[in-house]
Amino acid sequence: MALEGVRAGFRNEAGIAAVLGILRQAFGERFQTGQAMREQHAHTTTYLPAQLPDGVVFVETAQEVQDVVRTCAAHKVPIIPFGTGSSLEGQVNAAAGGISIDFSRMNRVLEVNAEDLDCTVEPGVTREQLNEYLRDTGLFFPIDPGANASIGGMTATRASGTNAVRYGTMKDNVLAVTAVMANGEEIRTARRARKSSAGYDLTRLMVGAEGTLGVLTSITLRLQGIPEMIAGGVCGFATLKDAASAVITTIQMGIPVARIELLNDAQVAACNAYSGLSLAVQPTLFVEFHGTAETVRLQSEQFAEIVAENGGGAFEWSTDAAARAKLWKARHNAYYSAKALIPGMAALSTDVCVPISRFADCVAETEADIIENGFTAPIVGHAGDGNFHVLVLFDDKNPAEIARVEDFCVRLNARALAMDGTCTGEHGIGQGKQPFLIEELGASVHVMRQIKRALDPDNIMNPGKIFTLD
Amino acid sequence: MALEGVRAGFRNEAGIAAVLGILRQAFGERFQTGQAMREQHAHTTTYLPAQLPDGVVFVETAQEVQDVVRTCAAHKVPIIPFGTGSSLEGQVNAAAGGISIDFSRMNRVLEVNAEDLDCTVEPGVTREQLNEYLRDTGLFFPIDPGANASIGGMTATRASGTNAVRYGTMKDNVLAVTAVMANGEEIRTARRARKSSAGYDLTRLMVGAEGTLGVLTSITLRLQGIPEMIAGGVCGFATLKDAASAVITTIQMGIPVARIELLNDAQVAACNAYSGLSLAVQPTLFVEFHGTAETVRLQSEQFAEIVAENGGGAFEWSTDAAARAKLWKARHNAYYSAKALIPGMAALSTDVCVPISRFADCVAETEADIIENGFTAPIVGHAGDGNFHVLVLFDDKNPAEIARVEDFCVRLNARALAMDGTCTGEHGIGQGKQPFLIEELGASVHVMRQIKRALDPDNIMNPGKIFTLD
Repeated sequence: MALEGVRAGFRNEAGIAAVLGILRQAFGERFQTGQAMREQHAHTTTYLPAQLPDGVVFVETAQEVQDVVRTCAAHKVPIIPFGTGSSLEGQVNAAAGGISIDFSRMNRVLEVNAEDLDCTVEPGVTREQLNEYLRDTGLFFPIDPGANASIGGMTATRASGTNAVRYGTMKDNVLAVTAVMANGEEIRTARRARKSSAGYDLTRLMVGAEGTLGVLTSITLRLQGIPEMIAGGVCGFATLKDAASAVITTIQMGIPVARIELLNDAQVAACNAYSGLSLAVQPTLFVEFHGTAETVRLQSEQFAEIVAENGGGAFEWSTDAAARAKLWKARHNAYYSAKALIPGMAALSTDVCVPISRFADCVAETEADIIENGFTAPIVGHAGDGNFHVLVLFDDKNPAEIARVEDFCVRLNARALAMDGTCTGEHGIGQGKQPFLIEELGASVHVMRQIKRALDPDNIMNPGKIFTLD
Repeated sequence: MALEGVRAGFRNEAGIAAVLGILRQAFGERFQTGQAMREQHAHTTTYLPAQLPDGVVFVETAQEVQDVVRTCAAHKVPIIPFGTGSSLEGQVNAAAGGISIDFSRMNRVLEVNAEDLDCTVEPGVTREQLNEYLRDTGLFFPIDPGANASIGGMTATRASGTNAVRYGTMKDNVLAVTAVMANGEEIRTARRARKSSAGYDLTRLMVGAEGTLGVLTSITLRLQGIPEMIAGGVCGFATLKDAASAVITTIQMGIPVARIELLNDAQVAACNAYSGLSLAVQPTLFVEFHGTAETVRLQSEQFAEIVAENGGGAFEWSTDAAARAKLWKARHNAYYSAKALIPGMAALSTDVCVPISRFADCVAETEADIIENGFTAPIVGHAGDGNFHVLVLFDDKNPAEIARVEDFCVRLNARALAMDGTCTGEHGIGQGKQPFLIEELGASVHVMRQIKRALDPDNIMNPGKIFTLD
């Protein structure tokens, strides 16, 4: 089922040959067709088979993006935008060949408007690079998927991460984009005003479109003031349900928690081993509060009461930056810590998201499924959003094991959909989740296809992602 | 310039006649074609000329909406959704005739999921009705345009209001919609999860589409916990710039103000006269904080310091509910208080929105323009968003005066666009602002048209709004 979007379909060999010649001439050394380079730009993070582009062009300006798009459009050759390659659902695979546009040299911060709490960046800027750049301004950009992803890629997949419970996802933090559309025209989707009712929300349409409607050339982001004080801590619970209940109460009471992450015991053990933590191996919450000295104290105390009511252990919180950094580094390395449990195995990261009232049930039923089927598959979740990841380890050379993992994913997604949830809280559909998208949204997918056909009639913009057209 | 979208164009007389017959038979008394009823459903709030629909159908179920759409689609007859008729840019005018779908009988709250802080309502539910319904749950829906608008209309125009600085706009508070598209198919744009990366963001595409892509049949909304404590107050400033500076500092410091509204002296005088307030006639801020007893005290004290630094008068705040209700009622009646300044005059409400750093300049330059040109035109704004309204009074029987008002609007919008702002923070484009939309977003409007043509090839969904197709 996962191969729905991978069907290679038609390769336009004549067009591809023509484009290779033109780009080689135009970009010289900045256009590469070597096997290693092409492999590096095809998707290998999950068990989806890699599908190599025919060439990789390292663009440096929006004008160059426009030139590449026009060249590819003239010859009906696919375009696959590439940030850092950390997407998880085959988004950078070249299902029908074509040209990978690498944004690593298009990574300038174009403008910071500190007074307006916004900035404009090129797509290749990474989230860590941006926060490094912003440090002296007293501002930061809160969205933090585990990887040091590019802002372009994060925009394209509607990424979020641990801070989303407080600061929202990319949908909430992108004010505007510029993009080159399939007809070669560059558009700007909005001005810098905080809100607008000026026509269709093309900003939000481009956020999460996975490059299938146009190629981003700049992104205008909302920024946040660095909190005066950050407090955080850890607490363990006897059961997953107790931990999840504490999360639900926290959200329902409107405590403005900045991060609230749930790790099951398998994930805690993995983090202990990989990141040198020494936590008790039990369902555990990692929590963080942002505010002033007074408000983080108030919030931490309120939260401690909720923990106690739900049978949790002592909630010890502190404002110590080093301890906090170690904790959240371990959290961000959860994927690698899981992979390290059985070296040499492939890993699949799921990301269903359900209404918060169903979160405890969904996680508990999923853990029971994992145990019953003997998977090595820690669970870690953005609990405040009702979103969690199962990191399933398996031998991707073994068809029977792949089939078992696929069956597990079918059960997991069916469970989330039955709870009125989504198959993807933050990774996107890519190639891997296309059947689930159809189950989730039905006729809406038909509307998506109509939009795609209208804006990209030759299907050159990252074809085969989100849905297939035939 | 304001008539761009009003051009009536082709009236499909044969199709209209056929549809009138079918709907009369199907809906009996719930289908009306009397002059008074049709006038009531055409736009008369502003100086845009009213354009009457040919009939008004009072639907009661989504199935009936689907029946009406299919009937109209079969005969290529326009459909104009109607909530309460409080839109400000001609959104409910029937530019090419057709059928007005009145949602006043489709006003059930379908579902409240208190644990998940969400609810699902039919489009005819008004914001006051919803909050009345929710009262016992401890939850509320924060978006509050001045009028007691319908949730369907607020969704269609991407409305906001005084609370948007804290809680966002309709874009941020609609989780999902169901809608009947031009082909008669009903779609659901998302499930109830807090976040999702499942394909194109059709929810946000429908929010703000002004009924041009489909007819909403239900809206799933995020809700907020009613704050434990609400504090608020008023303070005056020597100049508009001082008041605006206090707002800018408040936002930049990240104080989570729930409402921060700026009234110029003309608006204060109008509110005094209309709503029985006795404020000093000077630029004034109305402010409100939501939280616990401790956090609203902290925020109020921080704000008082900012006021003092900006030369404002004493900021007295209280948690008295009656005083607060009187103040905000006066604020919501600002439009009527302005109209009462010269009985019998027409009023135009503008709504430009600029980045917060430019807010003081934009308001001050606009006030100078008003004074220089001798308009009676109070200013009131959602200052925290950089959004403000000029309520221009004029004689709409006098072409010269209309021309002067139109020139004023051209200058105002050019000023906002030059500051990287938008021509509409919350009212939408409708018929009145189409030339400004093109100035603001250029080639993006071309993309909007492509989407419209793909989803509504016969242009039956509220035609002539946002843009024209010819």
